[in-house]
Amino acid sequence: MYRTHHCGELKIENVNENITLSGWVQKIRKLGGMTFIDLRDRYGITQLVFDLEKNTKLAEAATKLGREFVIKAEGKVVERSSKNPDMQTGDIEIIVEKLEIIKASETPPFTIEDESDGGEELRMKYRYLDIRRNPVRNALILRHKVSKAVRDYLDSKEFIEAETPYLIKSTPEGARDFVVPSRLSPGSFYALPQSPQVFKQLFMVGGLDRYYQIVKCFRDEDFRADRQPEFTQIDCEMSFVTQDDVIKMFSEMAKYIFKTIKGIEFEGDFPIMSYEEAINTYGSDKPDLRFGMKIHQLNSVTQNRGFKVFDDAEYVGGICVEGASNYSRKQLDKLIDFVKKPQIGAKGLIYAKYNEDGTFKSSVDKFYSQEDLKEWAKVFDAKPGDLLLVISGEKSNSLNALNELRLEMGDRLGLRKKDNFVPLWVVDFPLLEWDEDSKRFHAMHHPFTSPKAEDLELMDTAPGKVRANAYDFVVNGVEVGGGSIRIYDNELQHKMFDLLGFTPEESEAQFGFLMEAFKYGAPPHGGAAFGLDRWVALLNGSDSIRDVIAFPKNNTGRDIMIDAPAPIDNAQLNDLNLKISPTT
Amino acid sequence: MYRTHHCGELKIENVNENITLSGWVQKIRKLGGMTFIDLRDRYGITQLVFDLEKNTKLAEAATKLGREFVIKAEGKVVERSSKNPDMQTGDIEIIVEKLEIIKASETPPFTIEDESDGGEELRMKYRYLDIRRNPVRNALILRHKVSKAVRDYLDSKEFIEAETPYLIKSTPEGARDFVVPSRLSPGSFYALPQSPQVFKQLFMVGGLDRYYQIVKCFRDEDFRADRQPEFTQIDCEMSFVTQDDVIKMFSEMAKYIFKTIKGIEFEGDFPIMSYEEAINTYGSDKPDLRFGMKIHQLNSVTQNRGFKVFDDAEYVGGICVEGASNYSRKQLDKLIDFVKKPQIGAKGLIYAKYNEDGTFKSSVDKFYSQEDLKEWAKVFDAKPGDLLLVISGEKSNSLNALNELRLEMGDRLGLRKKDNFVPLWVVDFPLLEWDEDSKRFHAMHHPFTSPKAEDLELMDTAPGKVRANAYDFVVNGVEVGGGSIRIYDNELQHKMFDLLGFTPEESEAQFGFLMEAFKYGAPPHGGAAFGLDRWVALLNGSDSIRDVIAFPKNNTGRDIMIDAPAPIDNAQLNDLNLKISPTT
Repeated sequence: MYRTHHCGELKIENVNENITLSGWVQKIRKLGGMTFIDLRDRYGITQLVFDLEKNTKLAEAATKLGREFVIKAEGKVVERSSKNPDMQTGDIEIIVEKLEIIKASETPPFTIEDESDGGEELRMKYRYLDIRRNPVRNALILRHKVSKAVRDYLDSKEFIEAETPYLIKSTPEGARDFVVPSRLSPGSFYALPQSPQVFKQLFMVGGLDRYYQIVKCFRDEDFRADRQPEFTQIDCEMSFVTQDDVIKMFSEMAKYIFKTIKGIEFEGDFPIMSYEEAINTYGSDKPDLRFGMKIHQLNSVTQNRGFKVFDDAEYVGGICVEGASNYSRKQLDKLIDFVKKPQIGAKGLIYAKYNEDGTFKSSVDKFYSQEDLKEWAKVFDAKPGDLLLVISGEKSNSLNALNELRLEMGDRLGLRKKDNFVPLWVVDFPLLEWDEDSKRFHAMHHPFTSPKAEDLELMDTAPGKVRANAYDFVVNGVEVGGGSIRIYDNELQHKMFDLLGFTPEESEAQFGFLMEAFKYGAPPHGGAAFGLDRWVALLNGSDSIRDVIAFPKNNTGRDIMIDAPAPIDNAQLNDLNLKISPTT
Repeated sequence: MYRTHHCGELKIENVNENITLSGWVQKIRKLGGMTFIDLRDRYGITQLVFDLEKNTKLAEAATKLGREFVIKAEGKVVERSSKNPDMQTGDIEIIVEKLEIIKASETPPFTIEDESDGGEELRMKYRYLDIRRNPVRNALILRHKVSKAVRDYLDSKEFIEAETPYLIKSTPEGARDFVVPSRLSPGSFYALPQSPQVFKQLFMVGGLDRYYQIVKCFRDEDFRADRQPEFTQIDCEMSFVTQDDVIKMFSEMAKYIFKTIKGIEFEGDFPIMSYEEAINTYGSDKPDLRFGMKIHQLNSVTQNRGFKVFDDAEYVGGICVEGASNYSRKQLDKLIDFVKKPQIGAKGLIYAKYNEDGTFKSSVDKFYSQEDLKEWAKVFDAKPGDLLLVISGEKSNSLNALNELRLEMGDRLGLRKKDNFVPLWVVDFPLLEWDEDSKRFHAMHHPFTSPKAEDLELMDTAPGKVRANAYDFVVNGVEVGGGSIRIYDNELQHKMFDLLGFTPEESEAQFGFLMEAFKYGAPPHGGAAFGLDRWVALLNGSDSIRDVIAFPKNNTGRDIMIDAPAPIDNAQLNDLNLKISPTT
């Protein structure tokens, strides 16, 4: 037997018991004739004591142990003379009577401590050692608890967890599929699902009524920051529901998660904001509501005063940064540099300081009088001491830059605290978005999202104006999930594919089985999917989902621990009837 | 709002309430001026009533509905005059006041009833309609409940559910990998995991202590009966454990499942049987213990009596079928045909009837006296009225044939009842098995299974005799799961790869990261994996795992509903730097 207890378990009640522990040597300290070892496992740390005088041989053996050795120690629990109240087992220690080295350890490539000396690349290569560190292990335990909470909640609401296939069919629509060559059907491929969307809809056609699954999804994208080729989705679907029903169900789920995991209780409903309002007020469809600093449009108070930059602009708008009128020239220059970065793309930044004395100082004083600037301030309801930051240009670009600037100012002012969670639902998304490159509409959510009944006739006349029964769940500027009420009529689904530029043959070939299914009594249905990785990162206070994934891939999609992807044998390629083309 | 209640919910307490139901039309019956509709959803059936006299228009509308129409009905709950105690809602019916057709249905390709008129192929093509049938839907609900029970049990034992990657590296060992070409690393491939084996071991190295995951695994095999290219595993691993600890933990899990799902309580420990005993006594490493009919070796009582067939045989053995001495010539001929089938492969079958009058009649009376046959009977402890069936030949082939014959006789005698569950553990498997084709050893479980300490030195002298710390969990002749105590020493792991014919370079290239991991304080660990599909099939009384998979693939690995696998675009192939070779 390797242990009678684990290392986080022994308390004052266990004093005088003979016990056995196994674990890793975290630390060895010598104090005169005494040697203390911190023995670690997943559950905690227990102090082992060796007395040179009382048991010379054992105490000498103890000093020869090294960090991360796996040992087994038998001994007696005694009360500590100087207790450590910060430690679960801080009331006791173990007088070791028998010691066994189960497995020695070479010196690890980085220290197994909360603040490790290992860089990210090194820690990823030795991820199994990284997992021994509290922050990483605790993130995995948190992930387990979130999954458990989700399952318990959904189970209590009569959702059935049902598995959908991983080897499905490739669809030309949307982001890229990973494909899997079939050996038994040479020249044919399976695809890995980007989501179980179609299958969960078929579950509804099949009368399963409420479905969920915590499931891996796959997307072969060019890697952007914080994307992984495989990610985990909490995937849900319900029959006989309206948008309100779905929002209610998953608001409750979110509350259950916050309560169970963080002990936070939310009163009342989460705010619901239209897409239009979110874009106009926050420059983003995933607004961070932990702070105000709303965007206001300024066209009416800035144009036709002779300042050509504003006069020529489709849009002039800005934010008001409370108490920042004392920003220095240098600080303002940095902000100008910030908005001009290519990924933000503003042409420039105009500022107007509302000084404490009630006067204004702006970078466009040549064109705008104190009276004019007072008008600006009025739009924001600004107070003396505030700083107005204004951007102009093409509307959506400007709003996008203002969103980035707002988030940056929120960070600078410490308004984005990680333990403050402010959720909302964003609704009334456009059904379609126009893609200039391909000169056609794309589905903003996906092709199965239903248009709002009141906008149905616009599908023929002004498809770009049709709003969808779609909703996103946003927390602290992060889109944690989203969903929609689906199309459940084959005619409407055909029309949707038509608008997306599918020929009838293409839509039939790709999704014929779904439209066929709709002919046999499809119920109205809708659902949502949540990013488990994002949920956990949010609750863990992590900036990257990589922190909450056991074995993540790096920015180029590589697993550097196991060194994948990798070439395969020619024999295997032959079996699959494949050849590698020479790279061009 | 589509419904205030679901169709399995309304009871006598709800009488006089105004309610709304939505669901599918299961059945329409006309009785004089009354029309009755059975409205169905996942939860049950509720009877809707339309009275031609009281509401002519509505009653006429009702008669125009068809099977599988989705409707919404508002009305009042009333007590039934003739109650149906077999129905959850059999005390009440609904006097419908408002009716809406949500979605009409074409006539389904088969009847949505417990006994459908649709063949398997048709039901698979329209699996979403098949799921509407009670037997299929109930199997999926059972699957959900089993998963939930497993998670609840493991969570209560401090197992952490942690996700392992799906995009990993291909290994030449074992069954075939499905591979996934990488677009970002042209010419390189990921592989889909055949199991998360190596990752769960790394979790143990990482100190996670207790891990589990219900996870999809993939195996590109030539399809055999009841194999799926993707299947679901309950994958578990524990640190600081011996074989006994693991067997105890998962015996408890099995008991929890039987109790929760079937209400069956098991007293005491499950039997533990050595591999050797299982093979010699049942001809199988997964014996069905629902019945006895053990195999006995008969060499000593059959050889050297002048019957050349037995004299030349390495092995003579048989079974005793209780009360079957009255089998007719025709019945016996059928058994002979059975054992001669190529998949069973016996050369023939000798019988000896132990007649009720105490005499014997055998097919080898020429060679064996009544006294001789009495000796045979003694080996089996046979009684008058029994039938002895004897097979001879090469030992393992004969045992295999006797296993098949035993199971066949068990079926014929009704000894294999589906609701009788008899579990056991089979232990002490050989570590290696010799493969005549490749003239080398293969790992019987997998290359990470540890040899028994007491057999360690045989690894150099007689590797074929080394027993492994491996165990299988068997119920009713089905291998539901299995596992082993793993190697956690890099030297021993190297030696194992060596025995399996890997060069040091090959083992380093494939599993270098694992052996590297073992250098940094790996704990002793072991675990088990259970086939969720098999568990559920067993509990569901299904012969095929296909019955308990929502969207299964057929025998050739095709999903005939979505028509996958399928060819992909040339553009996609080019992106992946791949070409299809002409089939040769």
